Amino acid sequence: MSFTLNDRPGVSEETRKRIAAVARDMGWSPNAAARALSVRSAGAIGLVIARPEQSFSSERFFFELIVGLQSQLSADGKALVLQVAKDVNEESEIHRRWWSGRTVDGIILIDLRENDPRPATLAQLGVPTVIVGQPSDSLGAVVGDEEGIMRKILEHLIEEGCTRIAYVSGFTSLAHITQRARTLSQIGRKRGIEVQLSTATDFTEDSALEHTKELLQGPRRPDAIIYDNEILTLGGYQALRTLGFTVGEDIAVVSCEDSAICRVLTPAVTAIHREPSTVGVHAAEVLTSMLAGGPATTVLEETPELIVRASSQLR
Amino acid sequence: MSFTLNDRPGVSEETRKRIAAVARDMGWSPNAAARALSVRSAGAIGLVIARPEQSFSSERFFFELIVGLQSQLSADGKALVLQVAKDVNEESEIHRRWWSGRTVDGIILIDLRENDPRPATLAQLGVPTVIVGQPSDSLGAVVGDEEGIMRKILEHLIEEGCTRIAYVSGFTSLAHITQRARTLSQIGRKRGIEVQLSTATDFTEDSALEHTKELLQGPRRPDAIIYDNEILTLGGYQALRTLGFTVGEDIAVVSCEDSAICRVLTPAVTAIHREPSTVGVHAAEVLTSMLAGGPATTVLEETPELIVRASSQLR
Repeated sequence: MSFTLNDRPGVSEETRKRIAAVARDMGWSPNAAARALSVRSAGAIGLVIARPEQSFSSERFFFELIVGLQSQLSADGKALVLQVAKDVNEESEIHRRWWSGRTVDGIILIDLRENDPRPATLAQLGVPTVIVGQPSDSLGAVVGDEEGIMRKILEHLIEEGCTRIAYVSGFTSLAHITQRARTLSQIGRKRGIEVQLSTATDFTEDSALEHTKELLQGPRRPDAIIYDNEILTLGGYQALRTLGFTVGEDIAVVSCEDSAICRVLTPAVTAIHREPSTVGVHAAEVLTSMLAGGPATTVLEETPELIVRASSQLR
Repeated sequence: MSFTLNDRPGVSEETRKRIAAVARDMGWSPNAAARALSVRSAGAIGLVIARPEQSFSSERFFFELIVGLQSQLSADGKALVLQVAKDVNEESEIHRRWWSGRTVDGIILIDLRENDPRPATLAQLGVPTVIVGQPSDSLGAVVGDEEGIMRKILEHLIEEGCTRIAYVSGFTSLAHITQRARTLSQIGRKRGIEVQLSTATDFTEDSALEHTKELLQGPRRPDAIIYDNEILTLGGYQALRTLGFTVGEDIAVVSCEDSAICRVLTPAVTAIHREPSTVGVHAAEVLTSMLAGGPATTVLEETPELIVRASSQLR
């Protein structure tokens, strides 16, 4: 039936025939059998997204990442196996099931938490893995310059004369978000600028609206607000409008993700412009090279541009 | 090794041991072997997207469809296998490979073309399949009310006094788009309204910008333009602004897809509000029921709402 089995010394002709008979009896096609018996390659890469559903329903980031991954994997004839999980524990279960059943040849890991158990588990299992967003000793990685991003934003706001800067973030359990907050605090201290790290949103527009209202009605009203992405910015704009603030005059606004929404909001939103599809392409490249026997390498992404628009140009 | 094999009459203890030995020798884990030998379920559903990459890079439709599919499949412990293809032929090759290797238990088919060969091929192969967007005799289907959508838009524009209505569409090779065009022409004739079906865009903002300019500078300048989605609308707005038109005064604009972009554009865009994630959930439900031995059913989606905003309220 399969080349591997036929070639194997120590398996008698009789045994081979019985295996073939049982297999046929079970409704196998030669193709399916060959694939199952070779277990060389699943022809697929796995990606689990472990976030509450509503928290990414409007974000272009994931879709573009997936498109980038896929466009690169397709060149290699590989598929992407995608599953949504409730949390990191469920994600780890899926990883184990995928690996023991060789559903996938390798795994892409996103949304790393502080003290995340997943990289160590995958390294131990020996699963070829590429982490998107954080460096790793033993696994492949594609790392964004979170410090550089926050430095660019802060330098720009300081130039515009802002002195009380607030950060409305996504889940603080995410490693890249604590990193952004840390950078803001450090630079703020160094430059004598007040930085307010608001409690984290759940990445929804409504929650950004509420947090922004609290900030504006609190004792230390900020003169600039940084939002983690364009959806949070959208919620922020609503709160600012409701409370009678004029963005670009009374207060500066910057988004850490760009999209068409940032261009068409009035006033248009100053934003960090990344191409998540490029990150996907790089992650697929690193993983493909690892699957071909190469070492686990790390790609450092260039610091993305800050596109300055009307929302942060104070008169 | 596997329950199925152990239980099988006519397989001797010796043969079972030899199979187990060979399998272990080949580095199989009992899990992998059990899965490979049962070949009952791949635990996955396949989806191929066959569109030029840039044509969906900004659209929320696909991502929300995928999220809806996944959230429903996850409840069943199933993964989604996703692959991007250049065209329908490459997509069919992927389907055949998936099915012969039992990579997937069933397939979701989207973006149906006029005279699409895929449904017949999949029916012939016996692959449990659900088509998103078009009805089928032999396969499962989730069908949107394209006629109802176009009727709602046209009735609204006629009420606003529009008499020369243009349609800036996506690829006319897509079945739902020819259906929309046909409905517009029919109603237009019946109501004595001029309907212009512009040559199709490639679903990009730039191409909508060009097509809109041509329309406005052509001999039969429209007093209303219908765009297939929010990205095309964005391109249209730029053309209208450049040529000095005021949307909501000189000309009405409607988008066949809603999103945050429609809400935040100035003026806000009247749009058909669908929930692609619901379509995904329904498609997964039909497929799951077919995999459990149920018949290939068809779900008819309710006609979505038209959210009237400033872009189509002519003064």
